Amino acid sequence: MPTNALGREIPEELGGRPLRPYQGAFVTVPAGRRAGGPLKTIRPGADKVAPSLEEAIRRSGLRDGMTISFHHCFRDGDRLVLQVVDACTQLGIGDLRLFATALFPCHEPLVRYIQEGVLTRIEGSLNGPIGAFVSQGGKLREPPILRSHGGRWRAVACGEVGIDVAFIAASEADPYGNANGINGPHACGPISFSVIDSWCADHAVVVTDHLAPYPAVPPTIEQGYVDQVVVVDQVGDPAGIVTGTLRITRSPTQLKIADLAVRAVEAAGLVRNGMGFQAGAGGISLAALELLTRRMRATGVRAAFAIGGTTRYLVAMLNEGLVGTILDGQAFDEEAIASHRTHPRHQPMTPGFYADYNSLGCATYMLDFAFLGGTEVDLEFNVNVNTHSDGQLLHGIGGHQDVASGAGVTVITLPTLRGRVPMIRDQVTTVTTPGEVIDLVVTERGIAVNPRRADLAADLRRAGLPVRTLTEMKEEAERLVGAGKKPLFGDEVVGVIQWRDGTVIDVVRKVEGWQ
Amino acid sequence: MPTNALGREIPEELGGRPLRPYQGAFVTVPAGRRAGGPLKTIRPGADKVAPSLEEAIRRSGLRDGMTISFHHCFRDGDRLVLQVVDACTQLGIGDLRLFATALFPCHEPLVRYIQEGVLTRIEGSLNGPIGAFVSQGGKLREPPILRSHGGRWRAVACGEVGIDVAFIAASEADPYGNANGINGPHACGPISFSVIDSWCADHAVVVTDHLAPYPAVPPTIEQGYVDQVVVVDQVGDPAGIVTGTLRITRSPTQLKIADLAVRAVEAAGLVRNGMGFQAGAGGISLAALELLTRRMRATGVRAAFAIGGTTRYLVAMLNEGLVGTILDGQAFDEEAIASHRTHPRHQPMTPGFYADYNSLGCATYMLDFAFLGGTEVDLEFNVNVNTHSDGQLLHGIGGHQDVASGAGVTVITLPTLRGRVPMIRDQVTTVTTPGEVIDLVVTERGIAVNPRRADLAADLRRAGLPVRTLTEMKEEAERLVGAGKKPLFGDEVVGVIQWRDGTVIDVVRKVEGWQ
Repeated sequence: MPTNALGREIPEELGGRPLRPYQGAFVTVPAGRRAGGPLKTIRPGADKVAPSLEEAIRRSGLRDGMTISFHHCFRDGDRLVLQVVDACTQLGIGDLRLFATALFPCHEPLVRYIQEGVLTRIEGSLNGPIGAFVSQGGKLREPPILRSHGGRWRAVACGEVGIDVAFIAASEADPYGNANGINGPHACGPISFSVIDSWCADHAVVVTDHLAPYPAVPPTIEQGYVDQVVVVDQVGDPAGIVTGTLRITRSPTQLKIADLAVRAVEAAGLVRNGMGFQAGAGGISLAALELLTRRMRATGVRAAFAIGGTTRYLVAMLNEGLVGTILDGQAFDEEAIASHRTHPRHQPMTPGFYADYNSLGCATYMLDFAFLGGTEVDLEFNVNVNTHSDGQLLHGIGGHQDVASGAGVTVITLPTLRGRVPMIRDQVTTVTTPGEVIDLVVTERGIAVNPRRADLAADLRRAGLPVRTLTEMKEEAERLVGAGKKPLFGDEVVGVIQWRDGTVIDVVRKVEGWQ
Repeated sequence: MPTNALGREIPEELGGRPLRPYQGAFVTVPAGRRAGGPLKTIRPGADKVAPSLEEAIRRSGLRDGMTISFHHCFRDGDRLVLQVVDACTQLGIGDLRLFATALFPCHEPLVRYIQEGVLTRIEGSLNGPIGAFVSQGGKLREPPILRSHGGRWRAVACGEVGIDVAFIAASEADPYGNANGINGPHACGPISFSVIDSWCADHAVVVTDHLAPYPAVPPTIEQGYVDQVVVVDQVGDPAGIVTGTLRITRSPTQLKIADLAVRAVEAAGLVRNGMGFQAGAGGISLAALELLTRRMRATGVRAAFAIGGTTRYLVAMLNEGLVGTILDGQAFDEEAIASHRTHPRHQPMTPGFYADYNSLGCATYMLDFAFLGGTEVDLEFNVNVNTHSDGQLLHGIGGHQDVASGAGVTVITLPTLRGRVPMIRDQVTTVTTPGEVIDLVVTERGIAVNPRRADLAADLRRAGLPVRTLTEMKEEAERLVGAGKKPLFGDEVVGVIQWRDGTVIDVVRKVEGWQ
């Protein structure tokens, strides 16, 4: 079987579709032109409001074998995917490809629809039970394709994925289809993930539980791209946006990692006026953000911008003037949503602006540094965020690849052990992000510097920081718990991990046993 | 020669390009998919800032025969078109097609470049001297094509016009290409006319005189679509935005027309809570706006939205709460620009959102009523805004077609006489907007109601308003000054007037003498 540039075995094709092997982080040169939706026209006075979701589906022309798309801005509080799939089932429509940006534990009932053949293909992030289910193999006609935020935008924008009907959950919409996620009783934050769906889908349906008088402002989704508007009881529950990960950690190990991470970027001279940074919403990242805030207050440093996923911690930095602008792709709590309504420099952005490989530069390319997590790293600095060490496909890529590719210094923060499982491996179970774009790996045992960044190693040593090799830290951890079991993989591919340029950086295979 | 649905003779082709004759306001059904720009990628760290306009042009690959595009947001204060055309001349590039949204008197020096063959084709609105110049015939290789705001967006978005290099004047930009028109020392208002150029052009150059640190917010033009950024001394002079037409008229005749226009829409029951309206920036429209404001204050009516072209009068209505939202395609004075920076319901919109025929509905379709001007009307309610009665091509279409098509009641306001020239004609010199989409013509002599709106005639009569026929008012005016001279037209076509759907509603022919 052919291997890609990282030595991973990649099938030449899957389900009749050829797979392009990953060649390097910035090797692919795209050709052709951007895709666009069908040209349509309507007359003044046309009524776009459908009386029910079922009727909207009927009018959309959706039929067997087609592709339906969704955003995940309600995260674990989403109520639209299940409503639509259920309505399709009622209408006798099956063999669908589900192209959601991401699925969450709330989507577990989809298992039944997969078993019944209503859904036969899934592309998108699979967080939790649906990932665990497809990891068993034999469930879908084709293995799921996972893409980064930028990768999904790219795939639609270049025509790699055609959407037949886009369903767009909106916390506010007007009868003409202008829609947003920041107003209404169930606001979820900007719904800009769906902008490209509205542009390129053959048919777009806005679904809301709050129909406002024309014009709904801001029109994140614009009327001119929306075929139908449907009102339902509830599109989503904002309570599901905030998950357990959105709290600052209290774990001494994790706090130590956060502290080392912040000291590392400071030692590298990156905590300076005019900087741009991104910190995720995980416990370590939020702790790092708090430490960074303290350092900035102490030194008088002001950041030009920060990229969100936005939490109240980042909003507080904006309001305090520590951060000049938030470029925001996704709101992670109520404070972030509210800030969108009022702060002129809390700037929403699409995943295209944030992260598209097929663009003349995206926001992540302007980052001075970023803190990212991972489930595993290996001695080549490759990072896994998709599978656990047991081989189960349990997480999406998010912006991991996009941020790591862009940031001047990409810092991976993770503990060397989770329970009794070591996190530094000879080879990661699945490569999500290649070592080529990783600069530092920070654990509670020290900081590993990618050999191609001798400059950083010198900076860190000068600052008295504990520069270690990954091998050293790996061996220390393994002395405590052993090397950890490794799954034995069969041949069946249960997941395809795309690099952000559309090539395949790895595949996930079915676990058949244990070494 | 074949005629279109209005009986106008339209050549079958011009310069090898077939012309599609106008068939009716809403007859065309578009086919195919929306166009998109070339797929490109760059690496982090790429420097987009070119050292000079000349060097940017060189790097863009611009060469003989290509198309360059511009917006007109600085109106008569634009300084970019001439700088670029001059630089092209220096570089020996010629035979260019100039695809500006509109040209103004400040662009008169282009005459020399036309004579020298640097510019051989022009598409866009020709306000003033360039229009007068091309009206003489024989100046360009192909006659200019004029489009409405929505029509131009449509032409780019559907691939009818391909742009080789878009030059986008920005009052603020960052080094990565994010650009806007509302910040910086020479703010001109939202530059959303150029959004479609940035999306579809083969190459896009942002030109600014105010380079801001990353990120420039709001990114009306987005980094991902911008190849190069250039800094020049001055892109434009905002003083040129405000022209003589942006004042409330003091003419008793015009005030009478404004009064009748407002009384007409009130009699029609349209001045009510939740309404949407548009009033242009001409003297009569502004007077009508002032009268409307007074009526709204007196009756407690609140509009849901108004569409701009925005002036300080509309901004005052927003701030007073008389208007809930301004949907703004173009700022006409400093107050309008400033309001964009601060008011969350002063919502910028692209010409696509405003007016695109090839869309699932545009903002003009939601208008309850609109006040528009004209140079002439005829007994079929056709309106001319492009030529004067002497046949000279002196004005662009602006949003005239788009607004008239969309508004529930479209009110044309014009005096029956300008000087000694009668404005109601048997046939307009040039049809810009067909009588099919005109409801009322208001002059100082009364109100003519389109026969297909018997409902309106009844409303107006009930309110005691002077309902007249166009023939009556025409005859009254002609009793004072005669019927007016009529130009004798030759065969040469010096201008093509597109309907907003891309068909040809009329052509302008060279004047050879007088009847």
